[in-house]
Amino acid sequence: MYKYVELQNIVNRAINNMSYDYEAEKLFEPVKYLMSMGGKRIRPVMTLMACNLFDDKIEKAILPAVGIEVFHNFTLVHDDIMDKSEIRRGSATVHKKWNVNQAILSGDVMAFIANECMLSAPASVLMQVMKIFNDTAIDVCSGQQMDMDFEQKSFVSHTDYLRMIELKTAVLLAAALKIGAVTGNAEPEEAEKLYSFGSNLGLAFQIQDDLLDTYGDPRVFGKKIGNDIVSNKKTILLIKALELASGPQLNILNHQLQLEEFDSEEKIAEVKNIFDELNVKSAVEDMARQYTDLAYSSLEDVKVEKVRKEELMQLTAFLLNRTK
Amino acid sequence: MYKYVELQNIVNRAINNMSYDYEAEKLFEPVKYLMSMGGKRIRPVMTLMACNLFDDKIEKAILPAVGIEVFHNFTLVHDDIMDKSEIRRGSATVHKKWNVNQAILSGDVMAFIANECMLSAPASVLMQVMKIFNDTAIDVCSGQQMDMDFEQKSFVSHTDYLRMIELKTAVLLAAALKIGAVTGNAEPEEAEKLYSFGSNLGLAFQIQDDLLDTYGDPRVFGKKIGNDIVSNKKTILLIKALELASGPQLNILNHQLQLEEFDSEEKIAEVKNIFDELNVKSAVEDMARQYTDLAYSSLEDVKVEKVRKEELMQLTAFLLNRTK
Repeated sequence: MYKYVELQNIVNRAINNMSYDYEAEKLFEPVKYLMSMGGKRIRPVMTLMACNLFDDKIEKAILPAVGIEVFHNFTLVHDDIMDKSEIRRGSATVHKKWNVNQAILSGDVMAFIANECMLSAPASVLMQVMKIFNDTAIDVCSGQQMDMDFEQKSFVSHTDYLRMIELKTAVLLAAALKIGAVTGNAEPEEAEKLYSFGSNLGLAFQIQDDLLDTYGDPRVFGKKIGNDIVSNKKTILLIKALELASGPQLNILNHQLQLEEFDSEEKIAEVKNIFDELNVKSAVEDMARQYTDLAYSSLEDVKVEKVRKEELMQLTAFLLNRTK
Repeated sequence: MYKYVELQNIVNRAINNMSYDYEAEKLFEPVKYLMSMGGKRIRPVMTLMACNLFDDKIEKAILPAVGIEVFHNFTLVHDDIMDKSEIRRGSATVHKKWNVNQAILSGDVMAFIANECMLSAPASVLMQVMKIFNDTAIDVCSGQQMDMDFEQKSFVSHTDYLRMIELKTAVLLAAALKIGAVTGNAEPEEAEKLYSFGSNLGLAFQIQDDLLDTYGDPRVFGKKIGNDIVSNKKTILLIKALELASGPQLNILNHQLQLEEFDSEEKIAEVKNIFDELNVKSAVEDMARQYTDLAYSSLEDVKVEKVRKEELMQLTAFLLNRTK
C-alpha cells in the first residue's frame, strides 16, 4: 500500500510533467503559477488512496487525480475574483498578480484541462468517471451560487448552510474518492460508500473549520482567533446562534452584526458570550461528531481488508483532529 | 435530408427542453436568458447537417449539437465581461443585467452543461467526440488569449492575426461539423474534410466581417460603416495596411491611430484613403477568396452524393455572400 507522502510525490511529479500549449504562453503562466503553489494535495491523494484500496496498481488513476486538483484550482481562481481575495497560500491571487480578465480566461482553460485529465481514465470506466466529474462540477457551481445568495440574505437556516458547504466543498472530496474507487474497479456499492465517506468527511471538516476560527487554541491556530466574528461571516456558529436566540440575546447579536465601528476584542467577547449562553459550541460539536461518525462508518463498511484502509484512516484522523 | 429551418427548430426545441437544477435557481437564470436569446444557431445546425450527410437519422447528434451552442454561449458571456460589452443581440449582457460575479459563475456552469451534452454522444463515438470538443475548447481559450495579447501590441502580423481568428472562432465551426460527421459514423478522412471545410469557412467569414465593416453598403449593412476604423480595431485591413505602408502613408496611419479627438467621418475617409492607395481591400478580398475556395473544395471532396450536400452548400453560400 502506498503511503501519503509517496502519493503526494506522485501527484506533484505528474503536475510538474503537465505540458501546455505554448502558442498562447500567457494563458498558461497563471495555470503553472497556481498549480506549483503546492498545498497538501488532499483531494488527488484521496483519489489514489481510494484506487489503491481495490487495486495495487494505481497508475491509471494518476491523471484523473490530477484532474481533480486542476478542477479544484479552477474553482479557487474564479472564487478569488468573486471574493476579491488578494492572497492565496501566502502568494498573490491570479487576478491580483495579473488581472481579472486573465484570471477569468486562465480559470476557464483549467476547466478543460481538468476535463482532459479525466478523459485519460481507462475506457472501461471512462463514462462513469466523466459523469461523476461533470455532475460534481455542476454541484460545486451550485454551492458557490448558494454561498453568494446567502450573503444577500439576513437569515439562513443551518440546513441550508449545511447543504451549501456540502455542494461547495464536500462533494468534490466525495467525487475524488469515488473516481479513485471506480478507476480501481470497485463494485458500485463500494464506490458509493467512498462517496458517502468523502461527503461526510468534507462536512465534518468544514464545520470544524468554523469551530476553530472561534474556539481554536490561539497558541497553535496560526491565524488570529475570532476573525469570522469580526467580519460577520455566516458560519455555522452564527447561523445556529441566530436560530436559537430570542429576546435580549437576539437584540445583542443583531446589534453586534450591525455595528460599523467597534473594538474587535470587545465584539468577539460579546458574540462569544451569546454563543456560550446558547450552548452553540456544543450543538455544533455534536453536528461535527455526527458527520465524523458517518464518515468513519462508511469507510469501515467498505469491503476490503482492514489493513488496506490504514492510510485513509490515518489521513482522516489527521484531517479531523487538527488544531489549526 | 433536413432543411435549415427544420434543423433550427429541432435545435431550439432541444434548448427549450433543457432541464436545470432548481436548487440554485439564480445560477441558471442567466443561462436560460442567454440560451433563449435566439440567434441563427449556425453551429448546432451545422453539427446536424454534417451528421445528416452520412446518416438519415440525426437524433443522436442533437444533444452534442446543443452542447456546441452552450459552449459558444459560455465563451460569449465571459468574453463580454473581458470586453466590457454591454449589449448582446440587442439585450443587456449577463454581467450588465446581473453582475460580473454572476456572469463568471453562470458562464462556468455552462462549460459543464456543454460537457454534459457531449457526454450524450453514442458510446461508439463518445471518446472521439469528447476529445474533439475538449481540444477545441482549449484552442478557443488560446485564441481569446492571443486576441487579448494583440491589444497590448503595437504591431501584429497578418499571419498571427489569421491564427488568432482561426483559434478564437473558426475551430469551433470546424469542431461542430466534425462532431456531427463523427456522430453520423463518417470515415475519419471524411470527418477531417468537414473539419477543414469549417475552419476555412470560419476564416473566410471573419475576414468578410472585417471587409463589411469598412466597405459594406451603408443601405443594407445595418450598422454604421467604419466603426472599426473609428475604434482603431486591429482588423485584417488595418494589419495588412500597417504591413504594407511606409514613409508618409505610415505616418498618416500612425497619426490617425494616435488621435485622441477627431471627426469620425474625417478619420474614416483618411484611413480608407490609405487603404485604397495600398490596395488593401483587394489583398484582403484575395485572402477571403482563398479560404472560400478551400472551404468549397473540402466540402466537394466529401464522399457522399452531391444531393446530400445541398443544404450545407446553400448555408455556406448564405454565410459567404452576405451583405450585412
